[in-house]
Amino acid sequence: MSYQIAVLAGDGIGPEVMAEARKVLSAVEERFELAIEYSEYDIGGAAIDNHGCPLPDVTLKGCEASDAILFGSVGGPKWEHLPPNDQPERGALLPLRGHFELFCNMRPAKLHSGLEHMSPLRSDISSKGFDVLCVRELTGGIYFGKPKGRQGEGENEEAFDTMRYSRKEITRIAKIAFEAAQGRRNKVTSVDKANVLACSVLWREVVEEVAKDFPDVELEHIYIDNATMQLLRRPNEFDVMLCSNLFGDIISDEIAMLTGSMGLLSSVSMNSKGFGLYEPAGGSAPDIAGQGIANPVAQILSAALLLRHSLKLEDAAAAIEAAVGKALSDGYLTGELLPADERSNAKTTSQMGDYIAQVI
Amino acid sequence: MSYQIAVLAGDGIGPEVMAEARKVLSAVEERFELAIEYSEYDIGGAAIDNHGCPLPDVTLKGCEASDAILFGSVGGPKWEHLPPNDQPERGALLPLRGHFELFCNMRPAKLHSGLEHMSPLRSDISSKGFDVLCVRELTGGIYFGKPKGRQGEGENEEAFDTMRYSRKEITRIAKIAFEAAQGRRNKVTSVDKANVLACSVLWREVVEEVAKDFPDVELEHIYIDNATMQLLRRPNEFDVMLCSNLFGDIISDEIAMLTGSMGLLSSVSMNSKGFGLYEPAGGSAPDIAGQGIANPVAQILSAALLLRHSLKLEDAAAAIEAAVGKALSDGYLTGELLPADERSNAKTTSQMGDYIAQVI
Ligand SMILES: CC(C)[C@H](C(=O)O)[C@@H](O)C(=O)O
Ligand SMILES: CC(C)[C@H](C(=O)O)[C@@H](O)C(=O)O
Repeated sequence: MSYQIAVLAGDGIGPEVMAEARKVLSAVEERFELAIEYSEYDIGGAAIDNHGCPLPDVTLKGCEASDAILFGSVGGPKWEHLPPNDQPERGALLPLRGHFELFCNMRPAKLHSGLEHMSPLRSDISSKGFDVLCVRELTGGIYFGKPKGRQGEGENEEAFDTMRYSRKEITRIAKIAFEAAQGRRNKVTSVDKANVLACSVLWREVVEEVAKDFPDVELEHIYIDNATMQLLRRPNEFDVMLCSNLFGDIISDEIAMLTGSMGLLSSVSMNSKGFGLYEPAGGSAPDIAGQGIANPVAQILSAALLLRHSLKLEDAAAAIEAAVGKALSDGYLTGELLPADERSNAKTTSQMGDYIAQVI
Repeated sequence: MSYQIAVLAGDGIGPEVMAEARKVLSAVEERFELAIEYSEYDIGGAAIDNHGCPLPDVTLKGCEASDAILFGSVGGPKWEHLPPNDQPERGALLPLRGHFELFCNMRPAKLHSGLEHMSPLRSDISSKGFDVLCVRELTGGIYFGKPKGRQGEGENEEAFDTMRYSRKEITRIAKIAFEAAQGRRNKVTSVDKANVLACSVLWREVVEEVAKDFPDVELEHIYIDNATMQLLRRPNEFDVMLCSNLFGDIISDEIAMLTGSMGLLSSVSMNSKGFGLYEPAGGSAPDIAGQGIANPVAQILSAALLLRHSLKLEDAAAAIEAAVGKALSDGYLTGELLPADERSNAKTTSQMGDYIAQVI
């Protein structure tokens, strides 16, 4: 069996951390005798520079011909003057999500034991640890709802966006959240604003219906404003958080920041056929790009998720995760994970990749 | 000069903490020889029980005949089975905001010195303190935008909400944010999602225009997802946060929780004529209602804000704030602000009110 991966390294630290992910993938290929082919395509700012648009046709075609997309990160100050629609993030990520109907975004965020001090939370809260999976609807809601635009003139000129959700859309994402909870701690917290939004009232209704098929999973509803608060007091009480597109954007970032180690977090955006886009949570970090100090772990873990979810290569995925776990517990850490006075022990981007590949 | 205040104590701890605010108001009336008349009206759950709806006509008329509304809090488990539109919070607060066009919500949140340990943030972050004012647009956006509703059947049934902002609406709230910043640390952080929402693109444009009239105020833009994160790492770097209705709902609650002492926070919702609704940030807290342990400070500070903003009685407002400051620094605290092993020193709701009134 041979597999095809589209590699979209992108901007900022994207190419550097992608190189390490490729090293680690080579190591698992060898160990598990896999035949994976990689095709690299421009995306984001790099694609604007080389092709004049953030998501060129050749990139899209290349992705269509692949089993999955390994995505780096896009964006940076160089392209910030462009109109919103032409910028790397909005012009690359949103159309990819739409085109492949990647309706399901999963972002696991765990406070790694030994890294509790990285969390911005008070030590008595962070010492309890937490392990939350944010399941976010990714192709609906106010991101893509029509009509969206502007009308009128002068001080009466107005802009409008439409939040829109159908039963079908809510059902399919809710199911995934409940299934995920069954493999975890059997709890789903559905985030909405049902005291204000018609979409949230329907969301709650449908989630309740779906819950009937999962009697072993506990379901609770929470308003988005309260969720933002409770995550700060008792993150350990959450398991799976089920969110619409906009609320998931906010909640998944909040949880990521609560771990204090974004460089360790990856995410998958999938469609109903198992095709997915795998990316680190952290962004292109242009401020540290090119210095060889970026943490490649999130990109490496994205590759592991890709093997698991899109290629169904559980053993290879687990091997990567175990090797990452060993590196971290061996104290193999990039600078941002170390206290200021221990930064001299920091590993470089490529040292991290080498070590993890070698463990495999 | 005689003043008229509509008192809407509401549900849960509302009536208890309102009683203390009234004590304190009596003390300033005496000291400053003011003539304030109070009229009490049912609101929220109490109004549902007594009149069959959360915002009875007599309450609305009473508010119309007053100079300002002193609001307690509404809601509780007793009314949670009702349809969303008939519930105390949505059925009382939203129509009051709409009816009086209370477009400007201001929620100051400060980490009081001596109470840093209450913050859920890591001690090296909380020790720097923070003092943020959230200026939230309160009568527009997705809360009130039309169309809002449901259509279709079966799995294609869908719900929709409309986010809508006009230049005029954005201009008037932005001006208030910049004016407020001039009286503080001269910085406005405007929160949006301009990489996705048409409303946010217009928001950014208009805020930039308004900023031109305030050259002494620094302006920065931040995406809502990033704002949620940065508040956790460096809350001390924010001064005024300018938000649309939905984003302000989220941001103001996050900041409130970051102080760790919601019982100290109050807010004002004003219209262009200076008429306002003043309320504590904390909610009705039905779990501790009737026990005499709720913290009345937020309600008392709401009264101070009312004197300042709607009645223009700066001296009386400052006197209340000074008395509250003295109570807190004298260690006069309700239980939730004390470490578990010092709870035996906790003051009751009425002891707090008595002390503050007596200081005045
Ligand atoms: C870049 C932006 C459009 C995107 C989003 O809001 O979905 C990003 O914040 C994310 O979460 O992947
Ligand atoms: C009760 C609810 C409708 C309200 C809101 O979302 O505005 C509340 O959360 C608030 O912030 O005052």
